[in-house]
Amino acid sequence: MSTRVTQLRILLAAIELFNAEGTAAVSASRIAERCGISKGNLQYHFPNKRDVIFAIFQLAIGEMNAGWYRDHLEPTLEHMAAMFVRQLQLIVSYRFFYRELPDLLRQDPLLRRRYSENRERRLKVIEQFMHALCARGLMRLPQESRRLRSIVEVTWILSENWVNYTALQDREMSAATILEGYAAILEVLRPYLCADPLRITEESSCTIERLVPVPVASAACTIAVPMLQRSAAEPALGHSA
Amino acid sequence: MSTRVTQLRILLAAIELFNAEGTAAVSASRIAERCGISKGNLQYHFPNKRDVIFAIFQLAIGEMNAGWYRDHLEPTLEHMAAMFVRQLQLIVSYRFFYRELPDLLRQDPLLRRRYSENRERRLKVIEQFMHALCARGLMRLPQESRRLRSIVEVTWILSENWVNYTALQDREMSAATILEGYAAILEVLRPYLCADPLRITEESSCTIERLVPVPVASAACTIAVPMLQRSAAEPALGHSA
Repeated sequence: MSTRVTQLRILLAAIELFNAEGTAAVSASRIAERCGISKGNLQYHFPNKRDVIFAIFQLAIGEMNAGWYRDHLEPTLEHMAAMFVRQLQLIVSYRFFYRELPDLLRQDPLLRRRYSENRERRLKVIEQFMHALCARGLMRLPQESRRLRSIVEVTWILSENWVNYTALQDREMSAATILEGYAAILEVLRPYLCADPLRITEESSCTIERLVPVPVASAACTIAVPMLQRSAAEPALGHSA
Repeated sequence: MSTRVTQLRILLAAIELFNAEGTAAVSASRIAERCGISKGNLQYHFPNKRDVIFAIFQLAIGEMNAGWYRDHLEPTLEHMAAMFVRQLQLIVSYRFFYRELPDLLRQDPLLRRRYSENRERRLKVIEQFMHALCARGLMRLPQESRRLRSIVEVTWILSENWVNYTALQDREMSAATILEGYAAILEVLRPYLCADPLRITEESSCTIERLVPVPVASAACTIAVPMLQRSAAEPALGHSA
């Protein structure tokens, strides 16, 4: 079996265990056992747990970039709802990461740098998307760029924390909880949207219900399967600056 | 030394260690050592780490309630800025808790319930505060109560996550970072505020700079000292439903 495939099997096993129990509760031995390799073999690929977490974050970034780099080419309100659904599905797939995010970033300066770079890129893409909505006559943006930045940051913080926010009400992620989160985002954007807010809300509901036919959590770890298929030719995952 | 004072010394030591290193990295022995008692004595008061974390959360709730239950009696925009400063200072004091929040809540159903109850109470108080601003002619609230709730939830999620959000930029909490966070809150409330936004922003800056003369993190663990003084007559802290 190729190095890359072994590494992805390790990461998939780690994602499942971390999502279920949290990173602190899962030892390297448990991860090795779960994917049927020796602890020595695991350590050959990933010397410590921090390396596993870093590589999982790189997987997540790969997924983000695959889906998101062309968003500004489809500047519609329907697509904006679809972007929100996609982000929440990604967060559910890697939910341990978002559950422990500030602590994981505190522990690993390199992970913190990579995460910050990625966030900065994503915030720029969202700004670009809003400018594209504006060019289509769907939004009117505030004049000062500082204010637009602030609005984009608000929607980012909301999106990134919505799964955690609903989880503590013991609610599984579903079309209903996603709709609530999206309603909060629309509430923030409302002063800048040109169409009738009621119509936007109704159309967003249709989009979200079409995209989320079953509870998201049931499909939790399916994400790593496509990664496994498409990534055999990619470079090995390493924790290096 | 009374039981309560011993317990508070334990909690203060635990807050310092958890803030510096995270809950997973700190053992019961380390906490006992830090406050100069035996591990057996520590376990007599708090059988396990979960009990320590739960008791720390009760301390935080005590602080919140002491400061916040009368907010709606002072419905001014200046006081709203002061409320934000106070919440961020509390979060910095107990920053390990907010850094690990979703994971800590996942691990302890009782903590999750208490946290949810407290959040629900706080959201109601903020709604009440906004109604009071409205009665003073300082705000115009949306007609539908569902929308007001959504706006309040947005400001809550922002406040609770702002310290984590700036921490990953390696920035200490300061008047500047608090101002940025408050600008984001004002951006959300802007459509509902009656006064000129520029004037509100300027007045808020003055309030925040007056209240935050030094970096907040330098004053991190001072919070537990007043608790120690005022709480000798309060009931013992326990992890019971």
